[in-house]
Amino acid sequence: MEEFANTPPPPYYAVIFTSKRKEGDKGYREMAERMMELAAQQPGFLGVESARDQTGITVSYWKDLESIKQWKENANHREAQRLGHKAWYSAFKTRICKVEREYSMTS
Amino acid sequence: MEEFANTPPPPYYAVIFTSKRKEGDKGYREMAERMMELAAQQPGFLGVESARDQTGITVSYWKDLESIKQWKENANHREAQRLGHKAWYSAFKTRICKVEREYSMTS
Repeated sequence: MEEFANTPPPPYYAVIFTSKRKEGDKGYREMAERMMELAAQQPGFLGVESARDQTGITVSYWKDLESIKQWKENANHREAQRLGHKAWYSAFKTRICKVEREYSMTS
Repeated sequence: MEEFANTPPPPYYAVIFTSKRKEGDKGYREMAERMMELAAQQPGFLGVESARDQTGITVSYWKDLESIKQWKENANHREAQRLGHKAWYSAFKTRICKVEREYSMTS
C-alpha cells in the first residue's frame, strides 16, 4: 500500500475487521489479494488500509451502508468468508462505523 | 494484546489512527507503551487494538465523543502528539467514527 486510503471528506463508512490467524497459509494470501482487488471494483468502495503482526487489522472505507451490504453479499466474497470461518481465522470481529470527522498530517 | 478489545454492544466510538513511521526508535516504543497505559485509565476508554507492518493501525474505542475529546486534550498525550508530529511519524491520519453494528466469531 503506497499511502493511506484517499477517502473523501466525512461522512462515509468504515468496516474495521480485526482478526487472529490460524497457523499455515492454506490459500489465505492468494484469496486475500483477490478479495482486495475485487473489493476495489465494487460500487461505493473508497479505499483500504491493512496491517498485521500478532493481530490483523483491515479497515475498508465505503460510501454508505448499502455498498457495505452489497459487498458482504457478493458471491465470491461469501465464499472467502466461509473459508475464513473454517480455515484461516481463529477469531475475528467486524465493526461497521460511520466516520464523522478526520484530521491528518503529512510531512 | 491477548484478544480483541472487549467492547460493549454498539453504539460507541472508535478512533482509527493510521500511521507511517520514520526510521529509528527515538523514544517511540517507550512513549507508545506509556500512552497505552495512560489511555486505559481515562474515563470512557473501552479498549484498543493495534497492528503494524509497513503501515501502523491503532484503533481505540471510547464510550462517547466527550471521552475522546478529553483524551485528545490530556497534557501527557499532547506532549506525545507533539513528538509524533516532529520525530516519529512521516504521515498519519486520524478518523473519529461511531460504531453502529458489529459481529464476531471465536472458534
